[in-house]
Amino acid sequence: MSTQAQLAPILEVGGEALRRAMAETEVRLRAAASEHGEALAGFADGTLSAGGKRLRPMLVYISAGSQAAASDAVLCAGVAVELLHMATLVHDDVLDNADLRRGRPTVFAAGGRGAATTTGDLLFSRAFAVLVRTGDADAVRTLSRASSALARGELVQRADAWSDSVTVERYLERCELKTARLFEAACRLGASLGEPGTSAADALADFGRRIGVAFQIFDDVLDVSGPVERTGKARGTDLLDGTVTLPLILARGLDPSLADLDLRRDVTDAATAEAICDRIAATGALEDARASALTHVKQAKAGIAELGLPAKQKQLLDLVADGVVERYA
Amino acid sequence: MSTQAQLAPILEVGGEALRRAMAETEVRLRAAASEHGEALAGFADGTLSAGGKRLRPMLVYISAGSQAAASDAVLCAGVAVELLHMATLVHDDVLDNADLRRGRPTVFAAGGRGAATTTGDLLFSRAFAVLVRTGDADAVRTLSRASSALARGELVQRADAWSDSVTVERYLERCELKTARLFEAACRLGASLGEPGTSAADALADFGRRIGVAFQIFDDVLDVSGPVERTGKARGTDLLDGTVTLPLILARGLDPSLADLDLRRDVTDAATAEAICDRIAATGALEDARASALTHVKQAKAGIAELGLPAKQKQLLDLVADGVVERYA
Repeated sequence: MSTQAQLAPILEVGGEALRRAMAETEVRLRAAASEHGEALAGFADGTLSAGGKRLRPMLVYISAGSQAAASDAVLCAGVAVELLHMATLVHDDVLDNADLRRGRPTVFAAGGRGAATTTGDLLFSRAFAVLVRTGDADAVRTLSRASSALARGELVQRADAWSDSVTVERYLERCELKTARLFEAACRLGASLGEPGTSAADALADFGRRIGVAFQIFDDVLDVSGPVERTGKARGTDLLDGTVTLPLILARGLDPSLADLDLRRDVTDAATAEAICDRIAATGALEDARASALTHVKQAKAGIAELGLPAKQKQLLDLVADGVVERYA
Repeated sequence: MSTQAQLAPILEVGGEALRRAMAETEVRLRAAASEHGEALAGFADGTLSAGGKRLRPMLVYISAGSQAAASDAVLCAGVAVELLHMATLVHDDVLDNADLRRGRPTVFAAGGRGAATTTGDLLFSRAFAVLVRTGDADAVRTLSRASSALARGELVQRADAWSDSVTVERYLERCELKTARLFEAACRLGASLGEPGTSAADALADFGRRIGVAFQIFDDVLDVSGPVERTGKARGTDLLDGTVTLPLILARGLDPSLADLDLRRDVTDAATAEAICDRIAATGALEDARASALTHVKQAKAGIAELGLPAKQKQLLDLVADGVVERYA
């Protein structure tokens, strides 16, 4: 799901309507950035150009079930969730002192801490500004809840950093807040503004939440497993940041020598981080973590199986769900 | 306007209805922070407890003209503008590496850069979450516009830092974006959700914008004039940060030796900053800047004089407008 090529089968099934919605998303994202002065346009444009999978807007459009062209309201929702996502990425890069994202200089690298914090704030504002064009207060409520959850998840992650006692439950709660709630919001927004209407919105929102958790678990597995040439970043960056993820939590239960690991003391550079990745992999924890992600995907698909959605829409949702855990498979 | 004592005359005229709205604001701000996990409550609570004048919520309530108790929607608007204001303060403290605000440790000092950036994001989200409870999409639009303007103003300020060619027009544009648009939004929200209704909303919004510009000019004058025991911060902090404000812009036109000043080279510590403050004051630029602020206040008051507002509401608005430029007078 991390390269444009992997989106091809989804776009194939989605056809002209989905392709057009995705293209219109790019146009609108660019407009949202350029409406607010040159300084912003420059910084935000870099973030936009860096691209990304646009997985969240895609979830909005597929949940909306638009066989025909997506409505203006649905497009607003797609753009809004992506703007919110981008805002958090820009802030994450500030906090991680990250110079590159997807091979391009981050706003942090190009403009410094101040410009990046502010650009993130502006993208954040634009997300709400774009969504409110729908005139739908419920939609704004959905986005503001997701946005609060994202920030809360980030706080939980920071509170748990370097800890040797993070439980699986606590980890899953963090995945839900940090990642899954925005996937959930994307599906809910698409469903309630699109054809399914609010009757199917809860079930589609659940679907989004579950594949969001699976997405985050799989992301955390990739940080340990690599391969570097596919992920584009060194293995073990989470360990170096003190971020305790499912592979390490499970590995600690399987290998007593890892239970005593003190991330702050024992993981001091890229080489030691890679060595710990190898030890985690040797326990079989990566397979267990992947299995956990797959369970979430299975539950997600089961939850929408009986909804009576149009066959093509269901096929698209299944493709996205499978794609989430098939990255680099 | 910077101490609770200076608000006393306004509360006196506003009476029980205004007092109650202000008290309810504190309760709701605390609730907004405590709904989202302990980590946040801890950080946000510190920010909340640090208090502040709550000038923006007060503008909402006075613009709403509530002779009786403020409605739930008006209270939501008051809380939302304050949450947005707090979000920007928390982010400003991160960017300025500020350890203290109003004599209390900042979120940045207590929790570090990550916690503070994220707490700001969360307060930001909560602002929209609280406002959308009104169910009024126009209200959300008003807040998101103000929020975008704030961020854009911050970007302009950073772009102009250390510059020796900032014009008065450019400075006023920055004041409008950074400060006045949120004052404008406060008045517009109060008017449109309260008794005046949308018919008076534009005029009240203009009032808010003008006193917002005056507020910022006066703030910038205080940074040069002190006295330190009243402002609670050293003179010349703007100069040390490279922030070019109206006193310096005007002084450069009055004293050729200041025109050649290079902030980055010549203002290196608190002592040199204070010395430059004295030189700015010696030109008479502070009086000119104060006069400019007063002109904005006068225009603000004139703009609402013929609106036919209830006498008490007009008196309150005039008191707030005068208060903005009477701080430490």
